[in-house]
Amino acid sequence: MEGADVLGIDPGIGATGYGLVRFVGAHRDAPFLLECGVLKTSPKKKTPERLREIYDLVLGLIQKHSPRALVVEKAFYGKSVSVAMTIGQARGAAILAAANLGLPVYEFSAREVKQAVTGNGAADKTQVQYMIGQLLSLKSPPDSPDACDALAVALTYHFRSKVPVGAGLVSARSTKL
Amino acid sequence: MEGADVLGIDPGIGATGYGLVRFVGAHRDAPFLLECGVLKTSPKKKTPERLREIYDLVLGLIQKHSPRALVVEKAFYGKSVSVAMTIGQARGAAILAAANLGLPVYEFSAREVKQAVTGNGAADKTQVQYMIGQLLSLKSPPDSPDACDALAVALTYHFRSKVPVGAGLVSARSTKL
Repeated sequence: MEGADVLGIDPGIGATGYGLVRFVGAHRDAPFLLECGVLKTSPKKKTPERLREIYDLVLGLIQKHSPRALVVEKAFYGKSVSVAMTIGQARGAAILAAANLGLPVYEFSAREVKQAVTGNGAADKTQVQYMIGQLLSLKSPPDSPDACDALAVALTYHFRSKVPVGAGLVSARSTKL
Repeated sequence: MEGADVLGIDPGIGATGYGLVRFVGAHRDAPFLLECGVLKTSPKKKTPERLREIYDLVLGLIQKHSPRALVVEKAFYGKSVSVAMTIGQARGAAILAAANLGLPVYEFSAREVKQAVTGNGAADKTQVQYMIGQLLSLKSPPDSPDACDALAVALTYHFRSKVPVGAGLVSARSTKL
């Protein structure tokens, strides 16, 4: 099953959610939670050090699991300019880790992610969290909303591809960064 | 004079200006242009590859010149959210290169930079460009506004420090990222 894993990242300077999903079964279409969590960086630390922690997290996860893709949520343009700049820096750190290891990066909008995992593009966080638990057959979904968001975007890559991930194809509707 | 150089970067996904200034003389207070230019990344390339080019540029410049600091302009909040996100990613790539090599990063606002190099915090690009030529004793300033902005922020680090750069001190008014 090597190479069939997908790494979802929800980058933020203070909290970066991550989730690794493996697709198992004859058609490699049964999602299975490998690992998820959230990296919190201390606000007492300087920005370069916090970015480095995010970069090292993503680098380490890729090296540990050899996923076939990194998936991130598309930039959310509803936020303020200063928030966008800060998220952009964290997002850049995560994307760079993938780029430096030659891993392809895909992105989906928040609406696409919600649509894919709940069937409703305007679903709220609670619905997404609930569906993550259902889709991954967990007793209860991860507590961290950031980890859930990361898992949701990883699952979206799979759902949107419409073919087994192992086949190496992704729907034309997905956006490769 | 090793370690007295300052690297200024004006990061952007399409064009990243860079400028290396060495401070020479008995008091290490005479700025001298080592190298400057602009890296343009192709819009045909994917974002991860463009970020990687920016990262590699900054990494290469640091490895080549061993500057004592990387200096960038503070996030400019007047721009749109989508522009801020894009600049943030490029900025993250530049900052990460410094962080991964253990180089300190400083930032100044656009107003501080203009004030430092022209004496007028509201100066226009032409004035900044002109003063870069004067301050670095160039026959003519660099054509690229991005390279000029990078040199301007590098010079600001020096001017704002108020002590010879070689002394290893920076004014409390500067912001270490």
